[in-house]
Amino acid sequence: MTTLYVVSAGPGDPGLLAPEARAAVAASSDLVAYGLYLELLGDLCAGKTHHDLPLGEETGRARTALDLAADGRTTALISSGDVGIYAMATLVFELLDAQLEGLEANPGWLDVDIQVIPGISAMQAAAARAGAMLGHDFCTVSLSNLLTPWDTIEQRLHSAGQGDFVVNIYNPVSRKRHWQLNAARDILLKYRPAATPVVLGRQLTRADESVRIIRLDRLSAADVDMFTLVAIGNRESRHLVNGAREWVYTPRGYAQKREAV
Amino acid sequence: MTTLYVVSAGPGDPGLLAPEARAAVAASSDLVAYGLYLELLGDLCAGKTHHDLPLGEETGRARTALDLAADGRTTALISSGDVGIYAMATLVFELLDAQLEGLEANPGWLDVDIQVIPGISAMQAAAARAGAMLGHDFCTVSLSNLLTPWDTIEQRLHSAGQGDFVVNIYNPVSRKRHWQLNAARDILLKYRPAATPVVLGRQLTRADESVRIIRLDRLSAADVDMFTLVAIGNRESRHLVNGAREWVYTPRGYAQKREAV
Repeated sequence: MTTLYVVSAGPGDPGLLAPEARAAVAASSDLVAYGLYLELLGDLCAGKTHHDLPLGEETGRARTALDLAADGRTTALISSGDVGIYAMATLVFELLDAQLEGLEANPGWLDVDIQVIPGISAMQAAAARAGAMLGHDFCTVSLSNLLTPWDTIEQRLHSAGQGDFVVNIYNPVSRKRHWQLNAARDILLKYRPAATPVVLGRQLTRADESVRIIRLDRLSAADVDMFTLVAIGNRESRHLVNGAREWVYTPRGYAQKREAV
Repeated sequence: MTTLYVVSAGPGDPGLLAPEARAAVAASSDLVAYGLYLELLGDLCAGKTHHDLPLGEETGRARTALDLAADGRTTALISSGDVGIYAMATLVFELLDAQLEGLEANPGWLDVDIQVIPGISAMQAAAARAGAMLGHDFCTVSLSNLLTPWDTIEQRLHSAGQGDFVVNIYNPVSRKRHWQLNAARDILLKYRPAATPVVLGRQLTRADESVRIIRLDRLSAADVDMFTLVAIGNRESRHLVNGAREWVYTPRGYAQKREAV
């Protein structure tokens, strides 16, 4: 039984790549990933067969990885961040599911040993750089309406507002898609103050990283690109300024408890 | 300026501990953590001064870490999982906030260089072991009503149901607290089918790990302990059985797209 490693490459800094992910890439003869992710992994990829497919061909990428493993080649399918969060892992299982139902043409997939290796996602890198945004209940919402209808996304944003969850926005914009982020801001402004802190984390943990803290009412799609994680505080999140250093955190309520004592 | 490293120890397996977390512990003279977490880190902790405090004294632990760093001792404050998710990082900033407002007694804290190092949280380990539960929008809800009123938690569960988020339950039960998990199940059953898959991940990535997949209507606090992460699928999450191997995943909709083509 050949292994397909479904590997999280983490946010970018090799210091945040799990040893198990590194070992999985080392153990593989074939790598399926965007070229960009392989650059992050550096020397680790030398001497391996690299299979790339154009952006947008995610299903093709997962199918290639399953085919290679079914052919007896130990393979690593790699995504940045956590491969289980809005990334390739779920596609592998969508295809396996389709094969189990007889809708795909490679029964060899059913004999592949699938090993998913978790990793640090962009929201965690952003929260850590900015302080402790995820200190209390939070959610993630992808604004990509390529596969999810906008009214489902809109309902999720209203629910996130009603439940007062910290909101991590994935896929805030794309080259062709901009209005959704401003729409998301306007929905959340119905539920939380204009001054709610927002973290914009761009190219997190990489050489050109930037982290900005702004108010929710100043959030604009014009200031955000595809490489940016947008994290929006809940009604309790606090923006601290300590000299030249700024932080955002979401309390769990220990301070309130102290006041009550 | 002395550094206080606020360090994520990950779910347990040293293979999932980030090199940067390891380096931060190595660079510190003083470690503040439960004894259990230090056992996970093993030899890395040898020769360092260990400061422990009883369970429940989280604020004391964060205060000790800030005091040590303010005294010029390079210190690591360590939590399992991601230190930024329901863990110690937010307490450090709650205390810093209180100091900035003059409510604490150690202005030296303001000169501490705070570095937060993210890590892999239990929900990510559970999702990876079971497949790809976090493939689409999800949320986290802590059921601990020690610091958060139950009606706030209840509202969040209703919002999570309305928004059809995958729900990761943290702190599902404690020694003294059991009824909340059954109440959470009953709320979510109003919004999603009885057969919705649920992953129970216990002692994830450790020697005595267990992963079980059950139906939402069979979820019972009696089967869950403090070391268990409970992940509840959304209306689309699927339970696959492939011979002896079971998986749960939440699709992003690629398969639907294929049908539409």
